[in-house]
Amino acid sequence: MGSEGDVSGSDRTVLEQTTPPDDGRLDLMDRTFASDNYAGVHPEVLAAIADANNGHEISYGEDSVTERLQAIVKRHFGNRAEAYPVFNGTGANVVALTSVLPRWGAVVTTTTSHMHTDEGGAPEKTAGLKLFPVPTPDGKLTPELLETEAFGFGDEHRAQPLAVSIAQTTELGTLYRPEEIRAIADAAHAHGMTVHLDGSRLWNAAAALGVPFREFTTDAGVDILSLGATKNGALAAEAIVVINPDNVEGIVYLRKTAMQLASKMRFLSAQLLALFDDGLGLRSAAHANAMAARLRGAIEGTPGLGFSQATEANAVFAVLDNAVADRIRDRYRFYDWDRANGQVRWMTAFDTTEADVDAFAAAIKEELAR
Amino acid sequence: MGSEGDVSGSDRTVLEQTTPPDDGRLDLMDRTFASDNYAGVHPEVLAAIADANNGHEISYGEDSVTERLQAIVKRHFGNRAEAYPVFNGTGANVVALTSVLPRWGAVVTTTTSHMHTDEGGAPEKTAGLKLFPVPTPDGKLTPELLETEAFGFGDEHRAQPLAVSIAQTTELGTLYRPEEIRAIADAAHAHGMTVHLDGSRLWNAAAALGVPFREFTTDAGVDILSLGATKNGALAAEAIVVINPDNVEGIVYLRKTAMQLASKMRFLSAQLLALFDDGLGLRSAAHANAMAARLRGAIEGTPGLGFSQATEANAVFAVLDNAVADRIRDRYRFYDWDRANGQVRWMTAFDTTEADVDAFAAAIKEELAR
Amino acid sequence: MGSEGDVSGSDRTVLEQTTPPDDGRLDLMDRTFASDNYAGVHPEVLAAIADANNGHEISYGEDSVTERLQAIVKRHFGNRAEAYPVFNGTGANVVALTSVLPRWGAVVTTTTSHMHTDEGGAPEKTAGLKLFPVPTPDGKLTPELLETEAFGFGDEHRAQPLAVSIAQTTELGTLYRPEEIRAIADAAHAHGMTVHLDGSRLWNAAAALGVPFREFTTDAGVDILSLGATKNGALAAEAIVVINPDNVEGIVYLRKTAMQLASKMRFLSAQLLALFDDGLGLRSAAHANAMAARLRGAIEGTPGLGFSQATEANAVFAVLDNAVADRIRDRYRFYDWDRANGQVRWMTAFDTTEADVDAFAAAIKEELAR
Amino acid sequence: MGSEGDVSGSDRTVLEQTTPPDDGRLDLMDRTFASDNYAGVHPEVLAAIADANNGHEISYGEDSVTERLQAIVKRHFGNRAEAYPVFNGTGANVVALTSVLPRWGAVVTTTTSHMHTDEGGAPEKTAGLKLFPVPTPDGKLTPELLETEAFGFGDEHRAQPLAVSIAQTTELGTLYRPEEIRAIADAAHAHGMTVHLDGSRLWNAAAALGVPFREFTTDAGVDILSLGATKNGALAAEAIVVINPDNVEGIVYLRKTAMQLASKMRFLSAQLLALFDDGLGLRSAAHANAMAARLRGAIEGTPGLGFSQATEANAVFAVLDNAVADRIRDRYRFYDWDRANGQVRWMTAFDTTEADVDAFAAAIKEELAR
Repeated sequence: MGSEGDVSGSDRTVLEQTTPPDDGRLDLMDRTFASDNYAGVHPEVLAAIADANNGHEISYGEDSVTERLQAIVKRHFGNRAEAYPVFNGTGANVVALTSVLPRWGAVVTTTTSHMHTDEGGAPEKTAGLKLFPVPTPDGKLTPELLETEAFGFGDEHRAQPLAVSIAQTTELGTLYRPEEIRAIADAAHAHGMTVHLDGSRLWNAAAALGVPFREFTTDAGVDILSLGATKNGALAAEAIVVINPDNVEGIVYLRKTAMQLASKMRFLSAQLLALFDDGLGLRSAAHANAMAARLRGAIEGTPGLGFSQATEANAVFAVLDNAVADRIRDRYRFYDWDRANGQVRWMTAFDTTEADVDAFAAAIKEELAR
Repeated sequence: MGSEGDVSGSDRTVLEQTTPPDDGRLDLMDRTFASDNYAGVHPEVLAAIADANNGHEISYGEDSVTERLQAIVKRHFGNRAEAYPVFNGTGANVVALTSVLPRWGAVVTTTTSHMHTDEGGAPEKTAGLKLFPVPTPDGKLTPELLETEAFGFGDEHRAQPLAVSIAQTTELGTLYRPEEIRAIADAAHAHGMTVHLDGSRLWNAAAALGVPFREFTTDAGVDILSLGATKNGALAAEAIVVINPDNVEGIVYLRKTAMQLASKMRFLSAQLLALFDDGLGLRSAAHANAMAARLRGAIEGTPGLGFSQATEANAVFAVLDNAVADRIRDRYRFYDWDRANGQVRWMTAFDTTEADVDAFAAAIKEELAR
Repeated sequence: MGSEGDVSGSDRTVLEQTTPPDDGRLDLMDRTFASDNYAGVHPEVLAAIADANNGHEISYGEDSVTERLQAIVKRHFGNRAEAYPVFNGTGANVVALTSVLPRWGAVVTTTTSHMHTDEGGAPEKTAGLKLFPVPTPDGKLTPELLETEAFGFGDEHRAQPLAVSIAQTTELGTLYRPEEIRAIADAAHAHGMTVHLDGSRLWNAAAALGVPFREFTTDAGVDILSLGATKNGALAAEAIVVINPDNVEGIVYLRKTAMQLASKMRFLSAQLLALFDDGLGLRSAAHANAMAARLRGAIEGTPGLGFSQATEANAVFAVLDNAVADRIRDRYRFYDWDRANGQVRWMTAFDTTEADVDAFAAAIKEELAR
Repeated sequence: MGSEGDVSGSDRTVLEQTTPPDDGRLDLMDRTFASDNYAGVHPEVLAAIADANNGHEISYGEDSVTERLQAIVKRHFGNRAEAYPVFNGTGANVVALTSVLPRWGAVVTTTTSHMHTDEGGAPEKTAGLKLFPVPTPDGKLTPELLETEAFGFGDEHRAQPLAVSIAQTTELGTLYRPEEIRAIADAAHAHGMTVHLDGSRLWNAAAALGVPFREFTTDAGVDILSLGATKNGALAAEAIVVINPDNVEGIVYLRKTAMQLASKMRFLSAQLLALFDDGLGLRSAAHANAMAARLRGAIEGTPGLGFSQATEANAVFAVLDNAVADRIRDRYRFYDWDRANGQVRWMTAFDTTEADVDAFAAAIKEELAR
């Protein structure tokens, strides 16, 4: 069955109508536009893993590679920053939020947030996290929207909304400016709330903004974040980055109980390090962003095609007739976002080529013109 | 701190500004309009408890009183119905929903539902229940609103929305007609979802509709419900009523693990039975409803006063200037509902008198006229 | 099915072989020896409930009765003590332990503890509490036994054993001397652990020891306890008593999320208060203890009968042939404790009479003599 | 801090007294005897990962590599077998057990089981699994030991012991014969219990027994197992193998909510496949076992040295004076198992050489002789 973690909306099942390749393997020519998770591992990441495979090292994080990761994370996020490698993004989000919330805590987030729509209920089911999801037009929270759920402090009948979680870039491919994050953080902190940032595509945000990480994280008031790597060329690795340790408690225990503690941790750390080294992460994300922009540029203005969101990173949210979308999908795999409204999502990745984009754009135009 | 379980909205804390009686006890003259939970125990309920206090009985539900409760519940809800007494409404809701959902299940409900706003996150925290809350104008779900979250079946990335929960009467004092519940149940069942009804004020609904329970529960497609008693004159007792046992699993275990299994259960059953006997529950609820109607009738049309919801049972949702509301509150205790919009909630109970209502109405008018 | 919360051991199902009364109601002459939960409500407790039923009071604990309870609890347990009424013993234990443990915490307790054997897994299932159960000969922990599980502090691979829980009286009817509790508390505190006491039968302990509560709680180093009332003549009420608030966090929220917050709390508080007033609790417990001693005295030395535990409060743990036990059970309801070893448990309650005991003792002897 | 997941006992902290290498990296000459998790990735596994890195593939398990894994798992464990790759062993255990138990279920296991002692409480904390741990002399359950906790079926006061979990090889380095597993499975099935096998070192067991997997799993009555790979040369991959799908429910959802669903799953599957291909897993495990036997052979009979367990796979449990152990530890890193009794654990891995063993054995003898 064709399910995919980053896609919400009312009709993902349409994919079942398309013909999947017999052996599950896609035609190698087809770098799809379905998800940045369809891409493989960047060769430089693989090389870094091989490089770390050098005799015995202490397990569970006391190794030399993780030590180097700590140093580089401090360089990027500030001297108090600490990195906690984990296996995947859901794990990073759940552990991060659990570490900043008491048992009676709740998280204000958006209705389109990954943790509300695409984590299978993991926050609630494994950690008892209560979510207060707020509708937004573009996946972005604002101080005003935050206020609609940031109330009831001290009232035992209300799960205490002691954290806010925003995504950068958002699940709708949009982007917060540093000052927008600052404004949310200020509003949250004024309530005694902690600020979490789901940075599953943090590299794409940095590339799009053209500023260092810390300008829109540490310096913007973010307390803790999930740093993605898998979608940007890693094999399976993400990290929780604690920026403000004052608000965080027990994270080493919580990572363990959340089943996110890798025994041979050096190999997770090596993947994360590889993205920092030689600017690989930024380079890869910038490329993916450019491919999305190229795609949008190539098809914008085509009759029958609209866009529901700005294209600010590596996602294009388009609106077109379902029948046309299905014809395109017979040639290129991708996901509906909200079939009721004809919304689809096209994602680019570090390995999307200009030729991929141009061929896909041509196919879109052809089918729209039929 | 003055918190109260049935009240949501952005400013419950205003009560702290009012002067509470020195000893916590309210002036006996003041039957408040704050909550039906402020009322005491109906004398007939107390008498039923005393009547059950007759030597030894087997604990944990194998007693003669609980046996009689089972019989009367079958009479009201159908031959397959089973009653499971519990301590309170949150317990009833959580146990009921857990018994109809797999671990990966989610509940579609309204954003104003008690379980989302006033149970402190108990569904998520003690049972891992994921909620998909849907905004409504009047606290009432519809088949169309249900569809906005009833999707993604079979997709492991989405908590499976396998139950819907509606409240009768709603938290906004509104009422479903039997056919409205039927329509929701049909839509839910078409998806393979189970239908839960939060009947914390089920007696008020029955009194308002003027039909037997089963017309808007069993016969309308409800699978399981929480039957309230405390707000309608009991001491501390509610029951889960299983209407369709086919969709329910393990409820005796779940009641125990949810810490809702009373050792001397006969005394809970006696409270529930008392409401069924001689029509006490219906009588009490009809009176409370009438008092709310009387209040609304007495103040409707007063300049400076509006109403945000229909008054269909024992709640009046009024809109007035915050300053006026605060002056009234100096004389009668009640809760803000949404201070940002000047909404307040006035509740009546089984023991509210016509004189109480008339005096309160006079006070409201006086303060509005100032 | 005949299950009963205080009974562990390998064969509780034997009860199904006995003939239960047709209507679930026991013969009124038969005050059983099965459980102190089979008893009803003490008339003075019922009177206290009726007395509290006096007009409107603020719900959820801001009432005048709960205020009086707070005062009397301070008198008995020290000036820093706070009472939190809840519905039942499992609720008290779970909320108490959750309030003193971080999410990564574990509880060292005995293998016969109620929380390990008779709470259906509520500690694990609703609160994620990890238990480290330690075998004991008599249900009593010691500093030495505590040490067998009090290790691994700081090791993320081990749930952190940050609390110890002991029962007074124990589930085997035995009793800690104040200095025994002091020794455990000292050992626990030396590890930074918090001390919880499950006082489901705390009145029986006080009566047996002949000392005030605080001598074996507050003054012995207990930090928090569950104070039982239901088994000693209440309807349905227990309280968490926080003795050392420094080690406790968020209990008002945790009581709510554990579904243990009563709306009309004054009626729970009234039950608890009634036990303190006029020494009712102590009187009742002393009587129950005396009836157990009378029973043991009457049958001790009878050929074919042994005892597996000392009779220090209101439980007699006897050892006899299963066939004989079953014949006695045809006349008086009671539970096997461990059928493999022929152990049975006979409980007395506040309402057990001398005549009940004498008739039961005669029946035991008769069946043993056959 | 030096914690390590496979080690229990009362004094793991002793390692802090030894001098760790400055940079966290161990001297390359020192392949330690601390843990098979200290080893790196087998070169053939790395090659398999690189080989899978071939363009786009569908994420979350619909890829061609995972498809091949399914086929080979069926070959080894029977036609109904299904593989579910996950990140680590704790994840495999928790998801497997959750998929075979209702919410009110409990697991009978040993007091030395990894899930009781070394998973930080993950089973309880993320999945509400209740454990009934049984003491054993050698880490091995028996039908008789199982019976001590397999009771209370149908009794709501007891968490229902509906699964048994055993480890092969055990955490004490011992081994079940196929007929021993068969006997436990028969006893469990007779109670309606499901049989889980923690196969974190399943390859070592297969190598030691010299029989195919299915002889001591599928054919011995095992219903579901955790198949380890990381300790045997993988980077980070384990799999749940469902042998009897009749007893398993919702595993795809549970893997997701347990945060064990890898987006680029092909790379986990590739690691597992590599162990099956060309007999790599068996070869590696046989070598590790041989190195443990060599070590034991070299030191057995040395004065001052005893052994607390048979050496049946890749672990040697030795008993010696703490002071001597500490001197040896100054030269080779390893863990105490139970310092109170002078027990230590020495582990070998796929990359341990004969020279490593001989040098270590010499060091042990030297220090014992001093």
